[in-house]
Amino acid sequence: MPLTANDPSRKTWLDVPENSDFPIQNIPFGVFLTRDDIITIGTRIGNTAIDLGALHQLGYFEGIELTDDIFLQDTLNDFIADGRKTWRLVRNRISRIFLHDNPKLRDNPEHRQKVLFDLDEIEMQLPVDVGDYTDFYASKEHATNVGSLFRDPKNALLPNWLHVPIGYHGRSSSIVPSGMPIRRPVGQTKPGDDGVPGFGPTKLLDFELEMAFITTASNDLGKPIPIHEAEENIFGLVLFNDWSARDIQAWEYVPLGPFLGKNFASTISPWIVTLDALDAFRVKGPEQDPKPLPYLQQTGNKNYDIHLEASIKPSGGTENVIAQSNFKYMYWSMVQQLTHHTVNGCNVRSGDMMGSGTISGPTPDSYGSMLELTWKGEKPIKLNDGTERKFINDGDTVILRGYCKNDQVRIGFGECKGKVLPARQI
Amino acid sequence: MPLTANDPSRKTWLDVPENSDFPIQNIPFGVFLTRDDIITIGTRIGNTAIDLGALHQLGYFEGIELTDDIFLQDTLNDFIADGRKTWRLVRNRISRIFLHDNPKLRDNPEHRQKVLFDLDEIEMQLPVDVGDYTDFYASKEHATNVGSLFRDPKNALLPNWLHVPIGYHGRSSSIVPSGMPIRRPVGQTKPGDDGVPGFGPTKLLDFELEMAFITTASNDLGKPIPIHEAEENIFGLVLFNDWSARDIQAWEYVPLGPFLGKNFASTISPWIVTLDALDAFRVKGPEQDPKPLPYLQQTGNKNYDIHLEASIKPSGGTENVIAQSNFKYMYWSMVQQLTHHTVNGCNVRSGDMMGSGTISGPTPDSYGSMLELTWKGEKPIKLNDGTERKFINDGDTVILRGYCKNDQVRIGFGECKGKVLPARQI
Repeated sequence: MPLTANDPSRKTWLDVPENSDFPIQNIPFGVFLTRDDIITIGTRIGNTAIDLGALHQLGYFEGIELTDDIFLQDTLNDFIADGRKTWRLVRNRISRIFLHDNPKLRDNPEHRQKVLFDLDEIEMQLPVDVGDYTDFYASKEHATNVGSLFRDPKNALLPNWLHVPIGYHGRSSSIVPSGMPIRRPVGQTKPGDDGVPGFGPTKLLDFELEMAFITTASNDLGKPIPIHEAEENIFGLVLFNDWSARDIQAWEYVPLGPFLGKNFASTISPWIVTLDALDAFRVKGPEQDPKPLPYLQQTGNKNYDIHLEASIKPSGGTENVIAQSNFKYMYWSMVQQLTHHTVNGCNVRSGDMMGSGTISGPTPDSYGSMLELTWKGEKPIKLNDGTERKFINDGDTVILRGYCKNDQVRIGFGECKGKVLPARQI
Repeated sequence: MPLTANDPSRKTWLDVPENSDFPIQNIPFGVFLTRDDIITIGTRIGNTAIDLGALHQLGYFEGIELTDDIFLQDTLNDFIADGRKTWRLVRNRISRIFLHDNPKLRDNPEHRQKVLFDLDEIEMQLPVDVGDYTDFYASKEHATNVGSLFRDPKNALLPNWLHVPIGYHGRSSSIVPSGMPIRRPVGQTKPGDDGVPGFGPTKLLDFELEMAFITTASNDLGKPIPIHEAEENIFGLVLFNDWSARDIQAWEYVPLGPFLGKNFASTISPWIVTLDALDAFRVKGPEQDPKPLPYLQQTGNKNYDIHLEASIKPSGGTENVIAQSNFKYMYWSMVQQLTHHTVNGCNVRSGDMMGSGTISGPTPDSYGSMLELTWKGEKPIKLNDGTERKFINDGDTVILRGYCKNDQVRIGFGECKGKVLPARQI
C-alpha cells in the first residue's frame, strides 16, 4: 500500500507554523479529552487537534472497514489491533481530508466546529492501555558508560551484551503522559558504616533519554515472530523518560534487576508517531560485530535518524539543552528487540510498550542521563542561571524532544516533559 | 464485619466430598465459561461451580450494593475494585444461600438449573486481567540455596536481602490458567569454547513453587500504602508456577534480571481463595533479624500456614510428589511486600498480581524448584516409573497443590498444573 500521506509536496488548509513537528506528513495518533469532556482518539496537524471520533461519525472514513466506535474509546488499543493495513488506510484518508485543495471539511464550518480543537481546549491522555512494558538496554555507548562507572572500564560491556538484546520488564501502571508532575521517590539506600540502610528521598534523581515503540497484537503464546515479520507489528514511537533513582537502584538491583529505582514514574510524549511517518528517515544501524545469531539477522535499514534532545528548566528559569543524541545510535534495532522478545514464545499484545533504554551517542554531550553526563556527579553541569546540577533538583522540569528532518519535511514528537515535586513528608 | 462465612460448624445442602479443598467455608472466586458459552464470575463449593451472575440476576444478592453487571464480566477486576467490605458481604451472603437449612435456592429446581454447574460443564478462565505482575524473592531458604549454587556458599545471601523485600517485574501477558499446556521455550545460552552462544530448546526447564496474591486498587501514584493498611488491599491468593528456563536465565540475567528465562509462561490456579477464608490459618512469620526499617515493621500474625506440594506426572505415568513446603516459611510477608512495592509511590491497581518467589523450606525435600531439589542436577530425583529427573522433561505435567487444615476445616486451592510440550521446530 503506498504511503501517500508521506508525500513531502502535500500542503494542508490548516495553519502549520514553520518548524512544526506536526506537518500534514506526520499524522500521529493520540487520545484526548475535548472541551466537552469527551474522551476521543485524535490526530494533530500544526497546532490543531482533530477529533477522529467526530470525523468518523460524520462519514469521513466511508469505505474503510472500521467499527462505529473504533475512535470513541479512551485508548488506541483496539485501533492498533486492527493492523497495519487499517492504520495506513486511515492515515492516508486523514491526509486527503486536510489537503489544501479538498473543500469537503474545509468549507463546512459546522463540521469543522465539531472536529477541530485548539490545543489549549484539549487535555492529552495516555494513548494506550499498556498491557506490558519492557525496557531494553540497547545503546552500546550507554551500556559501556554504565559498565565503566559501576564495574570495570576495561571490561565495561558484559559478555552477553553483544549477543543478546538485553531487556527487562518494567511497571506499566506508573507510565504517565507528558506534563504530569513527578513526585521525588523515597526509598532504601546502601547502609553506611553502622550497617543500617539509609531511608529517605532519593538524592540521585535522574532522567533517561529513551524512545519507546508500541506494538499491535503480534503473536500467540508459544509462537515467535520471525525477524522479517517484526516490523509490521510495530505501530509507532513516542519519547520516553525512564525516571531513575540511582541510589535506590544501586542498593536493590542485584540480582534481579531494577525495581523501585525505576517504577515510581515513566513519562511519555502523548502523540504516537507511526513507523510509516518515519519511513523517509530510515538509516543503517551500527555495524554488528560479532554477527548476531541467525534469528536476529535483519536486512534493510532498520534504524531511524531521529535527533533527540534533553533539557532542564529550573523552577522560574529558562531551558538548558544538556544533551543531544540520536535514535540512530541504537545497536539493537526495534525489529531485533521485538524478535528477541518473542523467540521463547512470549506473546505480545496490542498496546504493549518497549523502551529502547537510554540512548547515548559517542560524545560526552550526547549522553542520555545525568549519571553519564556528569560522570556520576564528578563533572557537574552548569545551567544558564548560574546553578549547577549533578542530578535533578526539586522544581526542575525535564523536557525531551525529538524530530527527523531533511530538506523537504520535518516529522517530530513534540514534548515529553515532567516537573519534579519535592518528596512527600516522611 | 464478622466473617460469618468462616464458621467451621456450617454445613451446606450441596454435596462436598471428604477432604475437598472447597467446603462452604472456602468460597473462592473465579471466572468460567458455562455450558451455554457464557463467561461469568463464579464460586465453587465441593465439585459444584456456582454462577454468581445468574444468582445476582435472580435477586439473591438483594440488599448488597452491586452494579447489575458486576458478575457478568470476563474478569474479577471490577468486583475486586469494589473493596473489602463488598467482598465480605458477598462471601457471607453466598455462605447463607448454601447453608443446609436454607430452602430458598435448595428447593427451587428452576433456579438451581440456572445457577449450578458440574465441573465438567465449565471451563476455567484467568480470574483477573493482570495489569502488572511482580515477583518477589522472599524465601530465605530459596535465596540462600540459589546464592550457594551460583555464587558463594559462605556468603550465599546478598547484603541487601535481609533489608529489602527483593522483587522484580514480570510479564503479565503469559500468565495462563491451570491446565493450559506449556511449550518448551527456545533461546540463547552461554557460549561454548568457540565463543558463539548456544541456541535451541532449553535443556534446564524448571518449575517454581510459588503463591501469588491479587490486589485491589490500592493507591494513587506518589502515595505509599502504610503497612497497617496493606492487608485490606489484598483480595486473595492463588498457586503460582513460575516456569523457568535456567540456561536461558543464566546467560541473560546480568545486570537487569530474568527476562526470556521466565516470560514464556506462568501458570496459576484458577480459584482465588480470599485472605478472609484463610483467617484461621494465620501464623507468625520467621524471626526477622536485623529488624526491618520502620516502614516494614508489622504487628500481628501476617504469615499463613498453607501446606504446599509439587508433583511430576510423566506422560502416561502417575503422580510423584517431589516437594512439600509451606507458605509460612516466607521471610517477607505479603503485607511487607505490598508496602515495600509502594514506598516509592508506585501505584497498584485492581487485579495486579504479586508472586512470592519460590517457597523453599529448611529441609531438602521442601525445596520449591528442581534446581534446588536436584542441586543443579547433581542429585537426580527418582520417579516411581524408574526414570530420573534432573529438570522437567517433555510430556511431564507439573502439578502444584496447597491447602490449610486444622481439626475443623480444610481450605484449599485445587490444582495448578501444566503439561510440557516439546519445543517448536527451529
